[in-house]
Amino acid sequence: MKTTIGFIGLGHMGINMAKNLIASGYHLQVYNRTLSKIDELGAGNVTRCLSPAEAAANVPFLITMVSDDEVLRESAVGDGGILKTLQPNAVHISMSTISPDTSEELAKLHEQAGSRYLASPVFGRPEAAAARKLWICVSGDEQTKNDVRPILDLLGQAVIDFGPSVGGANVVKIAGNFMIMASMEMMAEAFTLAEKNGLSRTQVSEFFGSTLFNAPIFQNYGKLIAGKQYESVGFQSKLGYKDARLAFKLSQTSEMPMPIANAVHGRLLTAVAKGWGERDWVEGIGRGVSEDAGI
Amino acid sequence: MKTTIGFIGLGHMGINMAKNLIASGYHLQVYNRTLSKIDELGAGNVTRCLSPAEAAANVPFLITMVSDDEVLRESAVGDGGILKTLQPNAVHISMSTISPDTSEELAKLHEQAGSRYLASPVFGRPEAAAARKLWICVSGDEQTKNDVRPILDLLGQAVIDFGPSVGGANVVKIAGNFMIMASMEMMAEAFTLAEKNGLSRTQVSEFFGSTLFNAPIFQNYGKLIAGKQYESVGFQSKLGYKDARLAFKLSQTSEMPMPIANAVHGRLLTAVAKGWGERDWVEGIGRGVSEDAGI
Amino acid sequence: MKTTIGFIGLGHMGINMAKNLIASGYHLQVYNRTLSKIDELGAGNVTRCLSPAEAAANVPFLITMVSDDEVLRESAVGDGGILKTLQPNAVHISMSTISPDTSEELAKLHEQAGSRYLASPVFGRPEAAAARKLWICVSGDEQTKNDVRPILDLLGQAVIDFGPSVGGANVVKIAGNFMIMASMEMMAEAFTLAEKNGLSRTQVSEFFGSTLFNAPIFQNYGKLIAGKQYESVGFQSKLGYKDARLAFKLSQTSEMPMPIANAVHGRLLTAVAKGWGERDWVEGIGRGVSEDAGI
Amino acid sequence: MKTTIGFIGLGHMGINMAKNLIASGYHLQVYNRTLSKIDELGAGNVTRCLSPAEAAANVPFLITMVSDDEVLRESAVGDGGILKTLQPNAVHISMSTISPDTSEELAKLHEQAGSRYLASPVFGRPEAAAARKLWICVSGDEQTKNDVRPILDLLGQAVIDFGPSVGGANVVKIAGNFMIMASMEMMAEAFTLAEKNGLSRTQVSEFFGSTLFNAPIFQNYGKLIAGKQYESVGFQSKLGYKDARLAFKLSQTSEMPMPIANAVHGRLLTAVAKGWGERDWVEGIGRGVSEDAGI
Repeated sequence: MKTTIGFIGLGHMGINMAKNLIASGYHLQVYNRTLSKIDELGAGNVTRCLSPAEAAANVPFLITMVSDDEVLRESAVGDGGILKTLQPNAVHISMSTISPDTSEELAKLHEQAGSRYLASPVFGRPEAAAARKLWICVSGDEQTKNDVRPILDLLGQAVIDFGPSVGGANVVKIAGNFMIMASMEMMAEAFTLAEKNGLSRTQVSEFFGSTLFNAPIFQNYGKLIAGKQYESVGFQSKLGYKDARLAFKLSQTSEMPMPIANAVHGRLLTAVAKGWGERDWVEGIGRGVSEDAGI
Repeated sequence: MKTTIGFIGLGHMGINMAKNLIASGYHLQVYNRTLSKIDELGAGNVTRCLSPAEAAANVPFLITMVSDDEVLRESAVGDGGILKTLQPNAVHISMSTISPDTSEELAKLHEQAGSRYLASPVFGRPEAAAARKLWICVSGDEQTKNDVRPILDLLGQAVIDFGPSVGGANVVKIAGNFMIMASMEMMAEAFTLAEKNGLSRTQVSEFFGSTLFNAPIFQNYGKLIAGKQYESVGFQSKLGYKDARLAFKLSQTSEMPMPIANAVHGRLLTAVAKGWGERDWVEGIGRGVSEDAGI
Repeated sequence: MKTTIGFIGLGHMGINMAKNLIASGYHLQVYNRTLSKIDELGAGNVTRCLSPAEAAANVPFLITMVSDDEVLRESAVGDGGILKTLQPNAVHISMSTISPDTSEELAKLHEQAGSRYLASPVFGRPEAAAARKLWICVSGDEQTKNDVRPILDLLGQAVIDFGPSVGGANVVKIAGNFMIMASMEMMAEAFTLAEKNGLSRTQVSEFFGSTLFNAPIFQNYGKLIAGKQYESVGFQSKLGYKDARLAFKLSQTSEMPMPIANAVHGRLLTAVAKGWGERDWVEGIGRGVSEDAGI
Repeated sequence: MKTTIGFIGLGHMGINMAKNLIASGYHLQVYNRTLSKIDELGAGNVTRCLSPAEAAANVPFLITMVSDDEVLRESAVGDGGILKTLQPNAVHISMSTISPDTSEELAKLHEQAGSRYLASPVFGRPEAAAARKLWICVSGDEQTKNDVRPILDLLGQAVIDFGPSVGGANVVKIAGNFMIMASMEMMAEAFTLAEKNGLSRTQVSEFFGSTLFNAPIFQNYGKLIAGKQYESVGFQSKLGYKDARLAFKLSQTSEMPMPIANAVHGRLLTAVAKGWGERDWVEGIGRGVSEDAGI
């Protein structure tokens, strides 16, 4: 019989990761704010829990994949939080996109409680999570990284070790999301410039995506931005804005100005202010550039 | 015997392109501001000219590859300019990075003079020019595009047709250079954020360059920016600034704000103001981000 | 009998200045693009001219008050331009808001023609022009400044001498207009912040305008911005945008980044892109801030 | 015998305000982080306290004038915090520059404890505090505002009521400080533009300060910025940066982009990153503009 793992957070990403762990033979103790969501995992090898604490009880590993710092902090230190039940030496594998400050704070609390904390944020869309193609960034204690490695290997195509600093992997994740949203804004500006000059947005997008910028970000988002395909909501503007805030805050705590982070923060803040927070961030950014251009 | 082609401008790019044409059997009539540079092309199949007009006389095709709008305009309409000698129906293949306005202005002047003008700006560094690996963007009259195609095919790996608008290809070139400099700034911000948080700039660069951002721009410039490799000067900051000005001006004439273009324009203007105009733009951007971060 | 003065440009400002000169006993030779506008000056002491050249003939002083650099350049060097007729030693008093580059260029052309050029841009709204309350900035040749002094004294409440550099006064004018539009944007941001937090825009405006910011700019524009009073069009957004472009261009030629000039340039460019070019710049700025805030 | 007032925070502002209250006959119970500072108030009518709680005990009014939200929160809810001792119905007059969120949070805690909270931030430099010339902004409960009015009248030249919302006055204070720093940046840009064009920074400053911008902010700071007078440290760049962060955060919570707030935030963040945090904000802003201009 395989190990039991605690699992908290069945959002677009978490649901796919949880399914993969079950498919690989793990038994999961699952908590999710909307409990009914747990049914999607099927009946076998799943224990429904009513609180984070319940999910964290008596397991060697607990995975959290939640929406932001506040939810994670509440899941950890709240009334029914995991620190209440996590057994000695158990590892909290923290895979959400959060601030390195929160990782450091939680790492200390785990240490005091005798358990362990590991920042392990991931890159990849829900499809990548389903296909075990995530890139997983880790940082922190060497032994802990080794201990969780078999689990992470089941979830992604590569585990990249960013050294001993607790929050290092979170910094990389925030930097990466910043680069993604900056790429989207950059494309929206370039394609709208093309459009304003009578060219085809799509042709320009395809040209760059197949030559100098032939990387997934530019190909996949480029197609959506060029085509103004805003219907499908894969990642909400308000979540993109949350990540822009994380980048901005990190530029403050790191004491370094980031002009482009500033620009994309402004774009996503405007999207939220205009009421597009629930729309995909492709719309939040792309439509924002278009409206400012009078289109 | 092969055709004779006029050729103006033996900078880092032009010299390699001229060599390729000679190697393919063309005879060149060459003009360059610094005449001695023409010697590098060897003696065979080269005629040294003392003015643009001389280079343009009695040829069916004339290529210009010069530094900016002003030099091109002077080469065309100045005292010894090509419009004085270009024969009826001859084609001016304009490969420099210039404003679409200048293309439109020159296209009209050529039409009045009975000759033809074709915007054909290219993407690629000098090495790509040497290896016939340029991407060549064209726009304008259909017949003219067909007539010059054999020559362009010898210079690049692909010729991309952006339609009938005279300056369309120039817009694409400006948009592309904007995306390149924005990518550089974006990386400099992300890597400096990593550095400020105790991570390795190079590791972060290699991670992104091999995953989400596995495109030439991010791999090649990423390595230089991460390593703060500023010694070799491939493209001067002041030329990058010139391109940023072109992008900014195009955002004005197109009536659309471009916040990221604004940010990179400011970065390169600062580089020039600080006296780094002759340094590589990797330094202009990378060092600028570092200095503002107090590093 | 008083001197005859040439006068070109009867816009909101020029018409009032011309009236004052007539009231002070001068005879005017007037040219205006829309000739019928000249009728507003009455019949006495006015000669209607059909070209700038005609207005400039046989006078010791010629005043120009036109909309931008292009119109001024055309009035000076065009077919019916003043350089064709201006008599030796006559002074062209150039009062428009233009680039210092244009002043330098025109000053040279006047020198070659034997006449003189003096940059004399003004601060003040049409009401101030009518009330002879303009602040007039001058720069250039000492003798020339002395020669025109009696005329300038009739038009404004003060003449401020910014030294010998031909375009110096133009720099001051551009800097001042930049400060005005930045003040407007600053107030629109502050008042909208207040509004978003349930406070009265007007109360906040009145508080600042009567304490730390008790200057005309903040009192007069503050009232309009706070009250969203956009009906009356005193100064079009597209003219404000023209001035923002002058400031931006000057930051380029002066090799210095100006982040706030950047921000207001973006605001007014957006106003023009959204189709508000003919609306007052209070609307261009104020409504822009509101719309981005989702109001 | 006059009332006893609790007083916490003897910084540049607080010390002058406390002296004025004593001079008006009040007895003060004073706490300050550096206790020795209390000696400056003299022996009469002063009780030295070892904690905020001690200062707050048995008084009808308690004034706090501390450096930021964190210090205020600690003074209120910390181990030796005022909420431990403040008697029923006593009023905490909160005069620091803090976020409206903090005011709302503290107001609730006071209400639960049976005491009252009133946001009363002030405008004015230490000299103004000494001269009882502060402008005092208040917001919140009507009765409470009336109750503290006699005390506030002794401290400033005017008390301005911004309505019933608890944090309203804090919003006004943050908006005002934003406008001050934006004015400083605006002047630094304008004067440096003048300098780069051969004009006198001081002459330009005096011209604007005596005409369109004849308000204290432009006259006083204008003189310092024009003269690059950076020696005297009246208000540290890091405190200015703190206020810029408050403005930025408020733009986030209010869901509205503020491009100029963005620009000045970047300027002061850069000043701190470059190690100028302890220098006056005139230097942080003025020198920043100069360095970017290559001066």
